[in-house]
Amino acid sequence: MDGAQAPECDFPLANLPYGVFSTAGHGPRCGVAIGDHVLDLAALAAGGLLPAGDHGFDQPSLNRFMASGPEAWAALRARLTDLLAEGGSPDLRENAALRARAVLPLAAVQMHLPVEVKGYTDFYAGRQHAFNSGSILRGPENALTPNWSHMPIGYNGRVSTVVVSGTPVRRPLGQVMGEGAPTFGPSKRLDIEVEFGAIVALPTELGQTLTVAEAWEHLFGFVLLNDWSARDIQRWEGQPLGPFQSKAFATTISPWVVTRAALEQCRRSGPARDTALLPYLQEEADYFFDVKLEAHLAPQGAAQASRIVQTNTAHLYYSAPQLLAHHAVCGCRMQTGDLLGSGTISGPERGNFGCLMEQSWGGRDEIALEHGGSRIFLEDGDSVTLTGWGEVNGQRIGFGRCEGQILPAATAVGKAF
Amino acid sequence: MDGAQAPECDFPLANLPYGVFSTAGHGPRCGVAIGDHVLDLAALAAGGLLPAGDHGFDQPSLNRFMASGPEAWAALRARLTDLLAEGGSPDLRENAALRARAVLPLAAVQMHLPVEVKGYTDFYAGRQHAFNSGSILRGPENALTPNWSHMPIGYNGRVSTVVVSGTPVRRPLGQVMGEGAPTFGPSKRLDIEVEFGAIVALPTELGQTLTVAEAWEHLFGFVLLNDWSARDIQRWEGQPLGPFQSKAFATTISPWVVTRAALEQCRRSGPARDTALLPYLQEEADYFFDVKLEAHLAPQGAAQASRIVQTNTAHLYYSAPQLLAHHAVCGCRMQTGDLLGSGTISGPERGNFGCLMEQSWGGRDEIALEHGGSRIFLEDGDSVTLTGWGEVNGQRIGFGRCEGQILPAATAVGKAF
Repeated sequence: MDGAQAPECDFPLANLPYGVFSTAGHGPRCGVAIGDHVLDLAALAAGGLLPAGDHGFDQPSLNRFMASGPEAWAALRARLTDLLAEGGSPDLRENAALRARAVLPLAAVQMHLPVEVKGYTDFYAGRQHAFNSGSILRGPENALTPNWSHMPIGYNGRVSTVVVSGTPVRRPLGQVMGEGAPTFGPSKRLDIEVEFGAIVALPTELGQTLTVAEAWEHLFGFVLLNDWSARDIQRWEGQPLGPFQSKAFATTISPWVVTRAALEQCRRSGPARDTALLPYLQEEADYFFDVKLEAHLAPQGAAQASRIVQTNTAHLYYSAPQLLAHHAVCGCRMQTGDLLGSGTISGPERGNFGCLMEQSWGGRDEIALEHGGSRIFLEDGDSVTLTGWGEVNGQRIGFGRCEGQILPAATAVGKAF
Repeated sequence: MDGAQAPECDFPLANLPYGVFSTAGHGPRCGVAIGDHVLDLAALAAGGLLPAGDHGFDQPSLNRFMASGPEAWAALRARLTDLLAEGGSPDLRENAALRARAVLPLAAVQMHLPVEVKGYTDFYAGRQHAFNSGSILRGPENALTPNWSHMPIGYNGRVSTVVVSGTPVRRPLGQVMGEGAPTFGPSKRLDIEVEFGAIVALPTELGQTLTVAEAWEHLFGFVLLNDWSARDIQRWEGQPLGPFQSKAFATTISPWVVTRAALEQCRRSGPARDTALLPYLQEEADYFFDVKLEAHLAPQGAAQASRIVQTNTAHLYYSAPQLLAHHAVCGCRMQTGDLLGSGTISGPERGNFGCLMEQSWGGRDEIALEHGGSRIFLEDGDSVTLTGWGEVNGQRIGFGRCEGQILPAATAVGKAF
């Protein structure tokens, strides 16, 4: 467990985020990050060290454990804390054979999607981002649509292309607006979106609704999320039914799910509101978080990545349980493994804007990279890495890395390409 | 197999649609409709009567069989035709014990979703519907957005609420535009959308694209689809990211998937086009169908249902393989079990319009019901039934019924309601 005390470590004992990993010759199973190691939960369960219950830790997703509910989550967190704390239970510390099987260096494992994503919904819950995007497209006087301050605006995303950090992202082909007629080819305005993703643990039945307080209890935890976006395709296809192919080629999430319990001390109250929310969206507790988010860009072959975004989840206007309560209020069945993206999170200054579209103000301005070069949108070979962390007692409650590298577009359409 | 020769029967020998059914004491497995019976494919396979291969007929979805590919589909169709045809193989006809297990009255089985729906995408591929909807909202001169004639406009729908025919539909709660501020409550403008759904059988890899001809080969078959819609919620939430909660409460599909092979003689060429399509959407074969579609509405307790819609899939502007080719062209991974809705299919006259929004022209006109009463939008207790069929040699290649009844809305928000 070396490194768990280092201040820059994402995974101190107070965090215990969940993920799915594999090793050479042993397929995906559930684990917990601690320092620079991963604890194999399937091995611990097989060794009899974990609370009773069939939580499916030998499965390639956290879904079964998530569905087991808050008491099981709390019991496991308490037991892991006891097993790992100085002066805690000796059951793991003094079992060398089990330690050898169950405590593995993070550097030696491959991470997978932590959950089987059942539905992926992307919201638009950051006010500064909505204002900036609207200003670029429609001018500042019409930036926010009239509905925006009354409810979380969202759309269904594409589940099949939610990928784990490290998966390369191929530049998409698509139609874009041309002179008189559209043209077809690789997107020239490839962008990132720095988002916070909430993972739904408990399902609802068809027709059932949730209060905001109930929705909070249905959430398991959070991930970093990069909603890769092709702005030129989005601009042309977006009316009247919203973004589709411009978002469907990839959405990258962090491999680690940080739980509500780990972020308990990072909770914050919501923003000041000009407009009172309708009762079904009002909340009586602090469901926002102070989680710092950054994005770094490394051109291909660059020695150092340049920080391009510095923002914070506290800039959101709607909380995760508000997103979920709104989602369910029509009777939409929610499922274990649903992923709710916050939408791009932008702060007040240019360097806090969570996508290149905003930072370049619609492609007008070059964005200087601190370690050389500049960008307006992404180039082939660029790697983008999101990081994020709350701070508790001087330690980071971190998410690890959420990264992807841009591959060149296909050269033609069809299976042969 | 009584009834397979009756002209009004949806399921003659030339059809052989696939579905998933259960019986008292025996869970969901795959079957084929023939006349007023269902053939239990799991029982036939266990009896050694079907071509070799592990097609998962004992599973509660057609997904494994769909993934097995065109050769397996053709082999099974040929074998079933031989087993069921007069003068064909005696293997089933002369095996009374197996017949008793494997040939069941349709009236005695319960139907389930035929496929595990992995992604649900709803398009907007009917020109008359797009023109009517745009005319109601923006006037006829701006009815079609500039992109409409260049590509299939679509959006990701909600997978978790795709339900099989017969599932009740609870009237959704939601926000609607009010005087000065939005209000919250049950939708007052609940509508249907008469659609044709295509089922994707063969997957693609992340980043892979498909030509239209390749996309055709990836399709398994078709279902009827009713995209229930809350027009007042849709109107308020729809900008800028498209429909969300207004469509997420339920989407009903027929229990039977009619295959491409069954509809082979119903194929037609596409529409005349003012605008040439970009090469990736051009098609060199007839990928449209002459399939008649109807909707009937029965008020609660009514002795007879009134026909409210008469239309035809031939009114579509984009074919199913065009939808799929466009969907995959950005590199979006397609999966076995993806469902692609056509969008509402409207013909030229009022009675051909595929939703109440069009028939009432935005809620302005009452729609008289032939058996008494009238509607503008749906009322609690109303049942709506879609039917559809191609015609081959005077026989119907039908889809069965796609129906749902409207339940009253919840009285408040929260799990207790």
